[in-house]
Order: sequence, then C-alpha cells, then structure tokens
Amino acid sequence: MEGSRGRMAFIPHILLLLFLLLITTSTTTSSTLRRPLKPCKTLILYFHDIIYNGLNAANATAAIVASPAWANRTILAGQNHFGDVVVFDDPITLDNNLHSPPVGRAQGMYLYDKKEIYTAWLGFSFVLNSTDYKGTISFIGADPLMNKTRDVSVVGGTGDFFMTRGVATLMTDAFEGEVYFRLRADVKLYECY
Amino acid sequence: MEGSRGRMAFIPHILLLLFLLLITTSTTTSSTLRRPLKPCKTLILYFHDIIYNGLNAANATAAIVASPAWANRTILAGQNHFGDVVVFDDPITLDNNLHSPPVGRAQGMYLYDKKEIYTAWLGFSFVLNSTDYKGTISFIGADPLMNKTRDVSVVGGTGDFFMTRGVATLMTDAFEGEVYFRLRADVKLYECY
Amino acid sequence: MEGSRGRMAFIPHILLLLFLLLITTSTTTSSTLRRPLKPCKTLILYFHDIIYNGLNAANATAAIVASPAWANRTILAGQNHFGDVVVFDDPITLDNNLHSPPVGRAQGMYLYDKKEIYTAWLGFSFVLNSTDYKGTISFIGADPLMNKTRDVSVVGGTGDFFMTRGVATLMTDAFEGEVYFRLRADVKLYECY
Repeated sequence: MEGSRGRMAFIPHILLLLFLLLITTSTTTSSTLRRPLKPCKTLILYFHDIIYNGLNAANATAAIVASPAWANRTILAGQNHFGDVVVFDDPITLDNNLHSPPVGRAQGMYLYDKKEIYTAWLGFSFVLNSTDYKGTISFIGADPLMNKTRDVSVVGGTGDFFMTRGVATLMTDAFEGEVYFRLRADVKLYECY
Repeated sequence: MEGSRGRMAFIPHILLLLFLLLITTSTTTSSTLRRPLKPCKTLILYFHDIIYNGLNAANATAAIVASPAWANRTILAGQNHFGDVVVFDDPITLDNNLHSPPVGRAQGMYLYDKKEIYTAWLGFSFVLNSTDYKGTISFIGADPLMNKTRDVSVVGGTGDFFMTRGVATLMTDAFEGEVYFRLRADVKLYECY
Repeated sequence: MEGSRGRMAFIPHILLLLFLLLITTSTTTSSTLRRPLKPCKTLILYFHDIIYNGLNAANATAAIVASPAWANRTILAGQNHFGDVVVFDDPITLDNNLHSPPVGRAQGMYLYDKKEIYTAWLGFSFVLNSTDYKGTISFIGADPLMNKTRDVSVVGGTGDFFMTRGVATLMTDAFEGEVYFRLRADVKLYECY
C-alpha cells in the first residue's frame, strides 16, 4: 500500500518536472518571450527646459549648439526647427513647479528632425540625487512632440537604477513660445536589479 | 519490491532537482549567460538618405548640422567627413525603391568619426506606422560603412516593439556621390515581450 | 519501512518544487527583479583623447563640431565648455601608455552640458579588434567628470559582445590642459550571451 502510494505520487512529479524543465530551458537557451504584467518601479518626474535666445543667459538651461546651413544658433530654425541640436541641463522636480526643490538634473541632447512637423529625437539621462534616489536613468528615442503622449526607451541605468530597462511616457505639460517647455515623464521600469 | 522501486526512482529525482535548482538560481541570482538560438522577430527594411547640398532643399531628408572648424555645413568635410554630424528623417520602405509607399521613418543622427577612412556612429530610431507594425525600435552603434555588412545594437523599443533588444545588420544597398545613399537593415530581435 | 521512507522524502520534494515553480514563474511572467552578484565578463581599458586646437591636426583624435552661439569650434567654450559637442576616434590601449599598441578605437561623441561645473554626456562605442576580442560595446550616460569615478551604462554590443549589458566605471587617468585626457574604463558586463 505504502509503495503503491509512492508510485502514484511519482507521476505528477514527473509531469511537474518536465514542465519546469521546459519553461526553464526556454528562458535560458533560446530567445526570450516575456510579457511583464506591471513595472517593478515607477517614477513621475517633471523637467524644465529654458532655451537660450540671446537674452536669457543667466536662466537658460539649454542652448542650440548645431543647426543646418540655413539657420543659426540663437534662434530656432524655420522648417519646424529641422536640424537644430540642443544641449541641456534641466532641473527635475517632483511637481510641475519650476521653482520646487530639484531632485536631479536631466542632461543630454535633443534634436529636431522633421521638416513638416515638430518632431524630436532624444538622448539624455536623469541624474537623480535626492534622499529617495541616487543614480542615473538613460533614455533614447523618437519624440513626436505634437502627440499628447509619446513613449521613449529606458536603455540603462546606474546606482539605484543599476541595469534598469523600461519605457517612459512623455507629455508636454506646458510650453511658452520658443523659450520654455516642461515635460512630464512617467517612467515605468520593467527590469530592476 | 514496490518500495525499492520508489527508492530507485528517488535518485534521479534528486539529481534532476539539483540540476533545475542550479540552472534556475544561476539565471536569477547572478549574471546571466544566455545563448539565443534564433530571433523572436526579424524585419528587413530599407531607408533612404538624401543629404542637403545647397540645391535640393525640397527633396532632402537629411542635413549636415555640425562640422569641425575646417569645414562648413553645406558640403561634407574633407578627411573622410570627420566630424560632420547629420540629422535625418528618412523614409523606410519594404523594398529598395525610394518611391515605394513608406512604412515609417528612420529618425535621428549620424556622425562621421574617422579621419583615415569613412566610419560613422549612429543614434536613431525606426518609427514604424503601418498595418503590420506600430511602434519604435532604437539603435546605437559604430558603423564602419566601408564594410559590406556591419552590426549595430538594438537597445530598446516601444509599442509593438516594447522593451525589445537585438542586433541589426546594415548593408549599403546603393550610394550616389555625396547626395543619396540607401541602407538595408536586417533587424534581428532576440528579446520580445 | 521502505514505503515510509519514500513518503517522508516526498514532503521536501513538494516544497522544493513549489519553491522552484515560484521563482521560475516570477522571472517569466512578470517584471524581473534580479540581483547579479558578479559580472560575467570584465575588461579594463584606457582610451586617449587629443582634441583639435587649431595646431595639432596631425595628432588630434577628436574635434569640437558644435558649440553654442557664444563660442567657436576651435577653442573649448567658456562656462565650463557648456554646449560643446566633440566627435572622437580615440585609440584604446590595455595600459595607460598612449603609444602602446591599440586594441581598438573608442568612437562617438561627448558633449559638455553644465554651465557651473564640468559635466559631460557620452554616446560612444568601443570597437575592439584584437586577438582577444572582436566586436563592439556601446555606452551612453552622464559623466560628471570632476568625480573620481562615475558610472555609465553599457546598453548593447555586437560580435564577441553580442547583446551584452552592464556598467562601466570611468576614471580620469590623466589630463593635460584642454588638449589631452586619458580615461580608464572598468567595463563590467552582467549579461553575456
């Protein structure tokens, strides 16, 4: 009787083991197909860009540094700013107030890359230095900035964000002519270490 | 007899469990060593770059926006274009015909970075918007463009390409002087969600 | 007796299986939380940047190609070089000697992005071509270069570094005015294929 119970228990064991073996090897030996259900970390942050226009040297956090032959580096170019490259060091805040205490800086560059409408391409990092977070999150991606929301890729991180990956949803929270804009970034990290 | 069969079956169990434990913990608690056998998704796409040269403003999809001190932004620099930075918004097609219906745009920048031979460095995204695919794929990497094929990294994606990673093999499919070139990109994605 | 031993062994089995099932499914169906203990590959490399200053055309490995309106492309800008974009093709060596045989080239760009102190943002690749390694490693990230050490992200790779990810710790190993600097990069890869 005891032996027979042992033999019966043996069957589901084998099935379970085979199942485990299957899903385990599928994640280790071939390309991975994973569907994360929810982020392992989320952050909502605002950053503020004040573009140098020849008059605001003291306050500016960004400057046009490159432009096509038909434009200059003080005024954003025609043709929807096509070809303008901007370097920036923008304060990051937890709310939409430029004057709130910054929790870090957004640093890097963006470039306008379409003649017909406003569209940008971004390469930058959040450099966070607050009681909550110390570390960097790096982003690249297309920013079709006339869309209400647009997603860019989180491609790496350091410190508290060591090796992270994910997606950030950007929203233009405010803009004032060609001098100031504020972006809200909903950062969703799906790989945390 | 029954009991002895149970005991014999017990030994491979333990071995299997130990094996499973080993490979499972190795992927979760330490650095991962994975050898993908084949991509989870592949795409073959062409993109077309028409560089502004002072005469082709209507058709140009790209413009030199930065160059070293010895050069200007209308004609590609000497010394194998070293230091020229180009911003682009190129149509993407499914075949090698510039006039085929575009399935998206390749947007971003490249820069020439070697004095002795033509070599570029790329940072750009495919922004796909077709019945088949909606989303972005972002690339960075060195492009030794005199090589028949060269690989760049797929570092992230959004939409249909959420969180993707992989490698793209680039081939120069055509070039006409310093105005037009066409690249074929064999995109191989090894992480799909 | 034999049967009773089988039944007793059965309990830890189930626990172990449940444990395995838990950790295995947690890595495949939801966002991943992984804590790598040690890199799967490490490299210590030096790269050497000689910035064009109008006099050193033959030796220069880098050139300012973009700058804000108040600066030019021969001399690094005031305000801690804010807005200067530099394209580079630097030799990589295994030790700190500029004249050691190079094992590859560091190619890409950096930009200075802060008015108050020296800070840079990097986008570049190591293109390695030696008996030990053939392939590329791509980096992006903030470089607060006045810090003794700072981490940037390894976001992709090709060849021997296919699909790799990790972190690189940069250290300024030497600098001579505004013409030469040497960085030591401790590259720690946590995803190897």
